Amino acid sequence: MVYREVISLMTSGYGDMTDLTHQVENVIGRSGIKNGIVNIFNVGSTACIGTIEYEPGLVKDLPEQLSKIFPSGRHYAHEQTWHDGNGHSHLQATLVGSGITVPVENGRLVLGTWQQVFHLECDIKRRDREIVVTVIGE
Amino acid sequence: MVYREVISLMTSGYGDMTDLTHQVENVIGRSGIKNGIVNIFNVGSTACIGTIEYEPGLVKDLPEQLSKIFPSGRHYAHEQTWHDGNGHSHLQATLVGSGITVPVENGRLVLGTWQQVFHLECDIKRRDREIVVTVIGE
Amino acid sequence: MVYREVISLMTSGYGDMTDLTHQVENVIGRSGIKNGIVNIFNVGSTACIGTIEYEPGLVKDLPEQLSKIFPSGRHYAHEQTWHDGNGHSHLQATLVGSGITVPVENGRLVLGTWQQVFHLECDIKRRDREIVVTVIGE
Repeated sequence: MVYREVISLMTSGYGDMTDLTHQVENVIGRSGIKNGIVNIFNVGSTACIGTIEYEPGLVKDLPEQLSKIFPSGRHYAHEQTWHDGNGHSHLQATLVGSGITVPVENGRLVLGTWQQVFHLECDIKRRDREIVVTVIGE
Repeated sequence: MVYREVISLMTSGYGDMTDLTHQVENVIGRSGIKNGIVNIFNVGSTACIGTIEYEPGLVKDLPEQLSKIFPSGRHYAHEQTWHDGNGHSHLQATLVGSGITVPVENGRLVLGTWQQVFHLECDIKRRDREIVVTVIGE
Repeated sequence: MVYREVISLMTSGYGDMTDLTHQVENVIGRSGIKNGIVNIFNVGSTACIGTIEYEPGLVKDLPEQLSKIFPSGRHYAHEQTWHDGNGHSHLQATLVGSGITVPVENGRLVLGTWQQVFHLECDIKRRDREIVVTVIGE
C-alpha cells in the first residue's frame, strides 16, 4: 500500500530550519498505514532533510557549522556559470542529503524522544518548498 | 509484506563502531522476504548508520576524521542550553545520517565484498541503542 | 510489487561523476510501477550516490570540495594496513552515502527541475560499478 501527500513550506532563506515531525505523523495518520516506512524527500537541490534533536541550540549550530565546511564566498565553479551566489547551498544540501526514510510502527514514526525530522533551507533567499511524504506499508 | 525486528546494542562511548551486517542478514532470513529493501535506522540523535569497509583502519579513521569536521569543545550553541558536552555528537550523527536503505535479493543484502553496514556511537558516554530493521518486499 | 535492475558503469577514476536520472527513469518505466519509491544503491565502499544540480560547475566542485574535507595523502590508519592510497575515498563515500531513496509518481522520479541523481567515483582508479535500482510500489 502506498500513500502520498506533499507538505508545502515557505522558508525565510539560509539557515531556516523547520521541525516536520508532526506534519509527517499527520500524513501517516491519514494514510491508515500502521506498519512500514515513510520517505520524506525535498524537491530541489538547495535544501536538505534529516533527523536532529530539534532545540534552539542545534537549530543555530547546524547551518552555522555547515557553513564552516562549505562557506559561502569560496570560489566555486558553480558561480562561474550561474553567478547566483549559492554554490555552497548546493554542496551543503548534497552532503546532508535530500531525504530520509524512517520506520513507521502503530501508525507513528519510530524516533527517539529527542529526535525530530527537520528541513533545512540552504539557499540564500526565500523559497517555496515542496516536501514529498510517501508512506509504504500495511 | 513488512517485517520488523529491533537490534539492541550497548556501546562503550565515542567512536565505538559495530558491524551490523550479520545481524541484519539474520533478520532478513527470519522475515522470509526474498526480494525488496531493508531500512536500518538508529533511534536517537547521537549515533549514525552507514556503509563502510569494516576493517581496523577505517574503524579508527571514521570517528577520528568526523572529529576534525565537528570537534568536541568547539563553542556550540547546544552547550549553552544543555551543558552535556555532546554538541559535536549531534552534528556528526546528522551529517552521516540516522539510517540507510539497502537492497535485498535472494534473502540477502546486496553489498560489495568489502562493504558492511555499520553503527557508529557519536555520544560521549555508554549508550544502550536500539536499531530498527524493517524489511519490505515479497 | 518489487522490480529490480542493475545499471553498469565504468568510471575513469577519482571525481568522475555520472548523471543517472534518465537510466533510473527508464528502469521505472520498464517496471510498470506508477506510484511508490525507488532505491538507488552503489555496490562497493568507494563511490557514492545523491542528488545535485547536474551542471559542469558543481560536477567540478563536489569532488574538489570533498577532497578538502578528507584529502588524499592525509595519514589514515586505513593506509597502514592496505597501502592502496584510497583512505580518503572510503571516508568521502561514507559521508555522502552509498544510496538514496526517491519518490516515484506517475511512473516518474519526483525531482526538481534542477535536481538530478548522480553517481560519484571516489576511488583513485578506473572502476566497474554496479548500481542496484529497486522500485517498490503499485
